[in-house]
Amino acid sequence: MPRVSTDQLAARRQEILDGARTCFARHGYEGATVRRLEQSTGLSRGAIFHYFRDKDALFLALAEQDAERMADVVAADGLVQVMRNLLADPVDERSWLGTRLEVSRRLRTEPEFRERWSAHSAALTRATRARLERQARAGAVRDDVPVAVLAQYLELVMEGLVSHLAMGLSADDLGPVLDLVETAVRR
Amino acid sequence: MPRVSTDQLAARRQEILDGARTCFARHGYEGATVRRLEQSTGLSRGAIFHYFRDKDALFLALAEQDAERMADVVAADGLVQVMRNLLADPVDERSWLGTRLEVSRRLRTEPEFRERWSAHSAALTRATRARLERQARAGAVRDDVPVAVLAQYLELVMEGLVSHLAMGLSADDLGPVLDLVETAVRR
Repeated sequence: MPRVSTDQLAARRQEILDGARTCFARHGYEGATVRRLEQSTGLSRGAIFHYFRDKDALFLALAEQDAERMADVVAADGLVQVMRNLLADPVDERSWLGTRLEVSRRLRTEPEFRERWSAHSAALTRATRARLERQARAGAVRDDVPVAVLAQYLELVMEGLVSHLAMGLSADDLGPVLDLVETAVRR
Repeated sequence: MPRVSTDQLAARRQEILDGARTCFARHGYEGATVRRLEQSTGLSRGAIFHYFRDKDALFLALAEQDAERMADVVAADGLVQVMRNLLADPVDERSWLGTRLEVSRRLRTEPEFRERWSAHSAALTRATRARLERQARAGAVRDDVPVAVLAQYLELVMEGLVSHLAMGLSADDLGPVLDLVETAVRR
């Protein structure tokens, strides 16, 4: 039996994630059947579920990857930049956001699912607060409003933007809106 | 056959809407079966579907009623006040918001449904712009940003809030966030 390196395992795992993301974006969460996941990843169900316990685990791994990427951008350039990047994303990336709407309902009704999901979104919240605190020390954000409120404000706008894009509504005119959001936080 | 007055018809229609709202809030859109709608309205399916073509029509009539009520508040006190009212709503009202998440997915995938829905949300957009324009003439809002941008900004925050509440997330600390949103629009 050939030995498989850690790198190869990671590469295969990422290959599955990339195929699954396309599949979820195209068919929605419910519509991404095991058969379609096999087609879009080019792998058998046995191979897919060797890496991920079930479809939920696969979906949550994608959400986690999003959260990590966003947290990196937040650390470097702030949450408003994450939003600007979302606006600049091609429309098929937005289709992927659409699958989030399907799972939002489950957040409300399935406590276990909500717990797994919030572990992922917590990373983004932490990154947002940490950056705002750094910016506050540098005198770059307003000091008449607590950093915790500023962070919640940015996250609320982010929720609105994700919801807006996920519903397939137009994002053409939202650049100036994000400028306004940014100046509301700045000193 | 007894003659039924317009008032009686309107009262019966409202009775169905009130029962249906409770039913959707409790069981979700999918879970609000015809049998459960009968139970919560105390009326037969024949009576219910005499007033509303189908479950979609019933749901959209509720969304329309929400939009009208909100448009009234917007006209009088602005969209931020609508958001403050949502925060003050009892939790079972928020359960009703949860059903919106179930239909958001359909907005993306069903053009006909999106069209019917947007006719309703357009009333809120119009009311928001009209109020901001009045406020702008009175010198109460900032004049360095076009009113159209301010309106989109408030609507984006509103989308975030609805999504946040609909997912059952905590709203305890959002008051100061809305204060910030309000000052960002004011002169």
